[in-house]
Amino acid sequence: MKSNFRRILYGGDYNPNQWPEEIWKEDMRIFRNARINSATINVFSWAKLQPSEHEYSFDELDRIVDMLSAENYDIVMATSTAALPAWMVKRYPEVMHTDYEGRQHKFGGRHNACPNSPVYRHFASALVEKLAERYAGNPHVTCWHINNEFGNECYCDICQNAFRVWLKDKYKTIDAVNEAWNMEFWGHTLYDWDEIVLPNALGDGFSLDSTHFAGISLDYRRFISDSYLDCYKMERDIIRRHNPDVLVTTNLMGTYKGLDYFKWAKEMDIISWDNYPAYDTLPSQLAMKHDLMRGLKDMPFMIMEQTPSQQNWQRYNTLKRPGQLRALSYQGIAHGADSVQYFQLRRSVGGCEKFHGAVISHAGTDNTRVFRDVAQLGRELESFGTATLGSEKHSEAGILFDWENYWALEYTSGPCADLKYVPQIQQYYDYFYERNISVDMLPVDADFSRYKILCAPVLYMVRGNMKESLEAFVRNGGILILTYMSGIVGASDNVYLGGYPGPLREMAGIWVEEIDSLPPEMHNGVSFSDGSHAECNLVYDQIHLEGAEALGEYTRDFYAETPAVTRNSYGRGAVYYIGTQLDKTGLSHVLEQAVAEGQVRSLIPEASELEISCRESEDTRFYYLINFSGKDQPLPESLAGKTDLITGSVNRAEDVLKPWDVRILTEAL
Amino acid sequence: MKSNFRRILYGGDYNPNQWPEEIWKEDMRIFRNARINSATINVFSWAKLQPSEHEYSFDELDRIVDMLSAENYDIVMATSTAALPAWMVKRYPEVMHTDYEGRQHKFGGRHNACPNSPVYRHFASALVEKLAERYAGNPHVTCWHINNEFGNECYCDICQNAFRVWLKDKYKTIDAVNEAWNMEFWGHTLYDWDEIVLPNALGDGFSLDSTHFAGISLDYRRFISDSYLDCYKMERDIIRRHNPDVLVTTNLMGTYKGLDYFKWAKEMDIISWDNYPAYDTLPSQLAMKHDLMRGLKDMPFMIMEQTPSQQNWQRYNTLKRPGQLRALSYQGIAHGADSVQYFQLRRSVGGCEKFHGAVISHAGTDNTRVFRDVAQLGRELESFGTATLGSEKHSEAGILFDWENYWALEYTSGPCADLKYVPQIQQYYDYFYERNISVDMLPVDADFSRYKILCAPVLYMVRGNMKESLEAFVRNGGILILTYMSGIVGASDNVYLGGYPGPLREMAGIWVEEIDSLPPEMHNGVSFSDGSHAECNLVYDQIHLEGAEALGEYTRDFYAETPAVTRNSYGRGAVYYIGTQLDKTGLSHVLEQAVAEGQVRSLIPEASELEISCRESEDTRFYYLINFSGKDQPLPESLAGKTDLITGSVNRAEDVLKPWDVRILTEAL
Amino acid sequence: MKSNFRRILYGGDYNPNQWPEEIWKEDMRIFRNARINSATINVFSWAKLQPSEHEYSFDELDRIVDMLSAENYDIVMATSTAALPAWMVKRYPEVMHTDYEGRQHKFGGRHNACPNSPVYRHFASALVEKLAERYAGNPHVTCWHINNEFGNECYCDICQNAFRVWLKDKYKTIDAVNEAWNMEFWGHTLYDWDEIVLPNALGDGFSLDSTHFAGISLDYRRFISDSYLDCYKMERDIIRRHNPDVLVTTNLMGTYKGLDYFKWAKEMDIISWDNYPAYDTLPSQLAMKHDLMRGLKDMPFMIMEQTPSQQNWQRYNTLKRPGQLRALSYQGIAHGADSVQYFQLRRSVGGCEKFHGAVISHAGTDNTRVFRDVAQLGRELESFGTATLGSEKHSEAGILFDWENYWALEYTSGPCADLKYVPQIQQYYDYFYERNISVDMLPVDADFSRYKILCAPVLYMVRGNMKESLEAFVRNGGILILTYMSGIVGASDNVYLGGYPGPLREMAGIWVEEIDSLPPEMHNGVSFSDGSHAECNLVYDQIHLEGAEALGEYTRDFYAETPAVTRNSYGRGAVYYIGTQLDKTGLSHVLEQAVAEGQVRSLIPEASELEISCRESEDTRFYYLINFSGKDQPLPESLAGKTDLITGSVNRAEDVLKPWDVRILTEAL
Repeated sequence: MKSNFRRILYGGDYNPNQWPEEIWKEDMRIFRNARINSATINVFSWAKLQPSEHEYSFDELDRIVDMLSAENYDIVMATSTAALPAWMVKRYPEVMHTDYEGRQHKFGGRHNACPNSPVYRHFASALVEKLAERYAGNPHVTCWHINNEFGNECYCDICQNAFRVWLKDKYKTIDAVNEAWNMEFWGHTLYDWDEIVLPNALGDGFSLDSTHFAGISLDYRRFISDSYLDCYKMERDIIRRHNPDVLVTTNLMGTYKGLDYFKWAKEMDIISWDNYPAYDTLPSQLAMKHDLMRGLKDMPFMIMEQTPSQQNWQRYNTLKRPGQLRALSYQGIAHGADSVQYFQLRRSVGGCEKFHGAVISHAGTDNTRVFRDVAQLGRELESFGTATLGSEKHSEAGILFDWENYWALEYTSGPCADLKYVPQIQQYYDYFYERNISVDMLPVDADFSRYKILCAPVLYMVRGNMKESLEAFVRNGGILILTYMSGIVGASDNVYLGGYPGPLREMAGIWVEEIDSLPPEMHNGVSFSDGSHAECNLVYDQIHLEGAEALGEYTRDFYAETPAVTRNSYGRGAVYYIGTQLDKTGLSHVLEQAVAEGQVRSLIPEASELEISCRESEDTRFYYLINFSGKDQPLPESLAGKTDLITGSVNRAEDVLKPWDVRILTEAL
Repeated sequence: MKSNFRRILYGGDYNPNQWPEEIWKEDMRIFRNARINSATINVFSWAKLQPSEHEYSFDELDRIVDMLSAENYDIVMATSTAALPAWMVKRYPEVMHTDYEGRQHKFGGRHNACPNSPVYRHFASALVEKLAERYAGNPHVTCWHINNEFGNECYCDICQNAFRVWLKDKYKTIDAVNEAWNMEFWGHTLYDWDEIVLPNALGDGFSLDSTHFAGISLDYRRFISDSYLDCYKMERDIIRRHNPDVLVTTNLMGTYKGLDYFKWAKEMDIISWDNYPAYDTLPSQLAMKHDLMRGLKDMPFMIMEQTPSQQNWQRYNTLKRPGQLRALSYQGIAHGADSVQYFQLRRSVGGCEKFHGAVISHAGTDNTRVFRDVAQLGRELESFGTATLGSEKHSEAGILFDWENYWALEYTSGPCADLKYVPQIQQYYDYFYERNISVDMLPVDADFSRYKILCAPVLYMVRGNMKESLEAFVRNGGILILTYMSGIVGASDNVYLGGYPGPLREMAGIWVEEIDSLPPEMHNGVSFSDGSHAECNLVYDQIHLEGAEALGEYTRDFYAETPAVTRNSYGRGAVYYIGTQLDKTGLSHVLEQAVAEGQVRSLIPEASELEISCRESEDTRFYYLINFSGKDQPLPESLAGKTDLITGSVNRAEDVLKPWDVRILTEAL
Repeated sequence: MKSNFRRILYGGDYNPNQWPEEIWKEDMRIFRNARINSATINVFSWAKLQPSEHEYSFDELDRIVDMLSAENYDIVMATSTAALPAWMVKRYPEVMHTDYEGRQHKFGGRHNACPNSPVYRHFASALVEKLAERYAGNPHVTCWHINNEFGNECYCDICQNAFRVWLKDKYKTIDAVNEAWNMEFWGHTLYDWDEIVLPNALGDGFSLDSTHFAGISLDYRRFISDSYLDCYKMERDIIRRHNPDVLVTTNLMGTYKGLDYFKWAKEMDIISWDNYPAYDTLPSQLAMKHDLMRGLKDMPFMIMEQTPSQQNWQRYNTLKRPGQLRALSYQGIAHGADSVQYFQLRRSVGGCEKFHGAVISHAGTDNTRVFRDVAQLGRELESFGTATLGSEKHSEAGILFDWENYWALEYTSGPCADLKYVPQIQQYYDYFYERNISVDMLPVDADFSRYKILCAPVLYMVRGNMKESLEAFVRNGGILILTYMSGIVGASDNVYLGGYPGPLREMAGIWVEEIDSLPPEMHNGVSFSDGSHAECNLVYDQIHLEGAEALGEYTRDFYAETPAVTRNSYGRGAVYYIGTQLDKTGLSHVLEQAVAEGQVRSLIPEASELEISCRESEDTRFYYLINFSGKDQPLPESLAGKTDLITGSVNRAEDVLKPWDVRILTEAL
């Protein structure tokens, strides 16, 4: 795949406008030492660009763009629409969002606009029009960055009206709404569109954002995701009018719950995201997010933000250890990134992020540990030029990730409040990760034919042609892994009657009669046919075989010796069904069999505690080896003799990777 | 006592209106297999019955009533007034309740009306008028079920005005209010009725519902309990006008704090309640609630709701184990229930309760474990017909339960925030429960002369003639158990001056000079006169003997060797005073002596880990034996040779009850 | 120093207005037995003094004053302005404060007025005018007590406007505001004064009272502290007009965060405070608060409130053990109190404080343990007359306590949310306390020349001439202890660029390149040059020596063997820098060296587990020995032979102090 970039973008958020101009030159000098070649600018400058309703000022931004252009930077131009100017809120208070408790907010914060506010849309599009007019033709503006970390919600009357219009488009009649949301329950039957109330703390809401009618909440989630997406598209379309070829993105946030990123990805030219691990985030969690971001468009992506040292907003903001920044940056590249960008290039003097790390610290020099690490990485990235740019990942295994299931599973009441979507998915990802089996994160409407094995954990909501496409996948020889809490509801959270797992029942060859849930201290166990044993917890499907065979049975309680894990041959493939949350041993046991049946291969034949990923350009395979284990690790024998792209030296069988060490081993294709 | 019913009602909430009509026939067929003979209908149908302000539609309800009548059901007819129609809230937003933080709610949820709203009362009474007109004469309508699980609070201006009127009725002058609430403290002196503000988060409130002036909160509790009761009475009176003989009830919720159920009971023809244990609720907790519900009117009651399998709204919604549903149902009957009813008969397809268990599951068949359990129980209940209906319980022991004390104890600030009313009462109940001593839950104005022993734990508020009636009880030979935190305040939470326990001091023969409180890790001990020892905690009365003898003394701290537990002869009886929260051993030690002194007998002479309760009809005593112990239990020898009502077989001394097993042994009187 | 009083004030809050007049005489009789000579009256009587807008009534207060005058009491006259009358709130609802969430409160509570409300100020000053007119000339009115426990916040529009005016006075231009608050961050640039929004939950706020721009919050803290101070000064000035010589105070609350007490102290004639330890408050925590209160004006102070037995508002309200009240009262005196006052003299009959201890309990007699303890103490205090009154404390060690640093440290986001100001200071206080080294709590603008050693923990914000005065102190031979999180920001929370610890860098002789933070389970260790070892936690400065020597080095992680603790000679003195939170052993190790270098002496040469403090009159040194250890403690040998002021007996070397025992040993000067 041809890359969108002429080089690996190396740089990050840069806010010279927050600094006196005399410091800019010094910045350029220091950045040059680190081989920084890109800057994201203009992220939060609306108030300065537009000091009042009818007044704009681009002088300073012009000077910044000129300077960066002169330095041959790839400029990532943000649009500044993520934080409202104070004057606008004073004059048009309705432009601020209203929260779940119905409180219209006052001036402050960021991500603070009502996405359906005509005032907001008017002023935002006017500003972007001016920016595009002025900068869209600049060849140094490589990429446009719309708004910033889209998110939040709004519950104002404008949004309520917009929601009603959105619903009318979708359902046509109010009776269809009643049926979709099962409004006869508790006598909520609606007779008119204007009886619809947004889900909120004073209406049908309870706890933080749940409601008594999950269907309403699901539609609200879809609506609000679309509302922000409309804002994105509005800005994008303006930029496109001025330059149809320039890249447009916005920075996403991994597994952020609020927006349906697969739907967004269709509107984005390239995915970019902000990677902020905490001290206790596991490498596999980051790897899954990278793969999810790559999977959004099945394309290389940008790391738009990461901190070079520490964050400020966690309870304990640890420094990145020597080598850790480098390892994490290469991990991003290994999973598909074509950029390494920081928040931010110079550390703030004040405001809530002043303790957030930056390339240039408060000391203001290049004589710091962090800067030296940044500079070393910059020189390395520069050294291998465009070799890896645009290279692809190939996987035989896939895992479904679906925002509508994310929402629906977490909105539902019962059988177990501990069931959270992302950790459920992560368990499956970890299995592949730990065995260095390449795996793709897939939307439910992906082309499954490329895969040998698919995991679809907690596929609670089955909608559209999901049943058909999964059945086709298995019939054609695929191995499908299903779990508890699957096939329960359709698109509106109404249950498929007739027995769980509803539309998945036939291919799974089972009927789940009941779903037990137990507190952690009362868990059960599973005994497998080979005599091995595992513990299990959270939920416990009561399974009847309808063609499937039992792979494991419960060991305790009244359902001892009934099936807990099953396998059903279906067409040329097979469906595995895991009816309880297995511990790591148990899950590995089942997946091992499934992987074997699917003939899915690891990237290397031997086991290794290194993280190993592959990218492939037209003529080269790159093996990325990263040591996150905290201990020395031997080079896998099968990779000995290959050349390291970073050092140019040939690796030998007796080589050892120290903690945080990285290799990029090349293999001609 | 003659029963209100012709048979044990077996059925539950049934919402055919939420389902297509073609499914109703199948429901009837399935229910017949389970001997279901009763259905609670029309609980949440207001919006459907009344689609707009001037329009009513009873066609569907007619069809439901006709079908159930044809099937010879005992219909429990609900009035649908517990959830407002959306159109009403749109047109009259003030009809929604306002919460403790002063926020008027929007359309959503249930139990959502302002109880003092004239709009609500107008529409509710109009609806009930129509329902009563139409159905009160139907002989299959056995019982009316007003609203649903009355509860909630309202803090709107309408309620504030109603509160002022309620107070004027009670106190006549504003000076009397000032005195009752001790308003000179913090200079809150009122000069006019309209200066009175509801206790609320923005006024005198702090934490969840406490206020700086407990007297205000107490009066608010009384007022709001009365406000809902007025709603109940309004509906009841309409129904009575149409049928003076039909039973009227509403479903209560055990020890729910919000309503003074003893006051409510006086207005109800029969008590009904909803029984929802969690996985860790103890059988004795359920038994106490059943006995409390029976005690409300000293009369058999209805179990209006219980789940046949699991709930949806707990953290972990466990299935009822095989046998557990049956055991819990019989437990209800053993303690006085004349019905076994479920929520609900068919599981919802959508909405927040779709994972709540039902007689017919989402599978839609009678081929489920749960259905088989339900059907077995139905056949058993049918088999013994009217034998147990209306039979009574006789007890020599009583425990006072008093909602005003419940409120007052938990509103007071100090000496120890861990003192909660229900667990305090439960400790005393447990003593009797574990020894199979029959015990009644009594209001403070009960006729005490029927009892040999009375426990009045934490009788913090002594009002009306409580002092006199307790003294009379003891003088006539009764044994009274008092505890710490008793006799402190009068009806308005003002302290009885002159020394604790105020009006109880003379009969207890002690003076409590101070009340110490310690955190759990700093607790004390008690040594009894026979040399035995117990630990104690929470609060520590500093007791001076004024005629009483010390039964136990503290063992540590500066009050070591001073009295902790005392006994005072008074008239022909005695008063025990327990000045600190004893551990289980200690409490048993004291109660054993009291029970012996009162010559109170267990239902059987030997100890047993079975739960044993008795009901008596005119000619028969029924022993209900239930095994909640989780282990096999021998049949108590003294009950051998009696016939089991369920199986008709004679029990033998060597018989064993397995976990969840039940026997109903009969004895001619 | 001449005392403000003619005797040790012994008494407390007295509310006869809350009681029938026939009880007053009995009160006087009982108080006489306890040698009570002072009463604080009229604290919450506004509604009674002023029953309506144009009506005042002082009859009852006159009778109270007359009675107390006749009894020769020192009257502490409160002004009743801390709780609004209900009629005022009804007529002028805007007089109530508005909370952080923007909710204007309704009538209720206390400390409830908007401090900038013209209505409040009008009525409050009118009331005080009347009170002063009437009572300021009464020679028995020894002291005026303005309002009560000033505190709370207000976020109403009136306050918002007042804040804008306050800011305009301070900053002159809106550009200066933008710079101070770094408003270009997130594009918050302001163009007009009326764009300024109070920091609040719906604006720039997050969590409980933090905002994204600490500079705004800091200025709001200063503003609101000033707003309440204006209220104080308004009342004080009225009283002064009527009596320029009478003492004016208000009761403070130790380390209460909301008000800058050092700034307030400048406006107060004498400091008074309310001392409410919980069961787990350590004696050293109380000692620090006493010393802080003494330090506010470097002058003896009043204990305005303490409970004689228990409180009501803690989770567990323990009784004060026999001897504890006496020990705690003498502790106050030992640290500079010239009064011992209780809340309250007679226990309330109702309201939320009815379980708060009092001199006369609900029993209403003098025959109680508590009363006997109070009476014994009263007789003792009377016995030594004026001997200790006005005596001073002399210290060679000082600890800086600074409200602006308190606010700024806790407002900042990162590097570690567990860093709380008061516990940081307490660690240093404890070192001196445990060694009986007299220590003063100092404002940042104190005259440091009186001290040999100064501790300035977490001196995060360095403003004004703090740098210069600390440098001068060290240059002149002083020993200064600095720690992590120091010298980071200036007065507006903007970072000193160029390297931490900014203005303190030169004198500390170090550069802190980075600040690591780790969760508690991942902590590091420090190894000192003498081979001893300590553990450390929370934050970890990465230190470069710039002239300083390393006293201790980290033992683990990538910064093992780099400096953790340093010492730098500077002028004739030295600066110690502690770069991580050391455990107790480690901190003692460092401070031991510093104290030795500073030649700071303990009050007695030998170690003792007694708390020992000294006060000195012109001719006598008083050693206060208090045994808080819970075990018998020997009299320190060096103090044998001295006479005990309480008993008049000479102490002998073999004497033992039992738990809670007190000695006041005198030594002629």
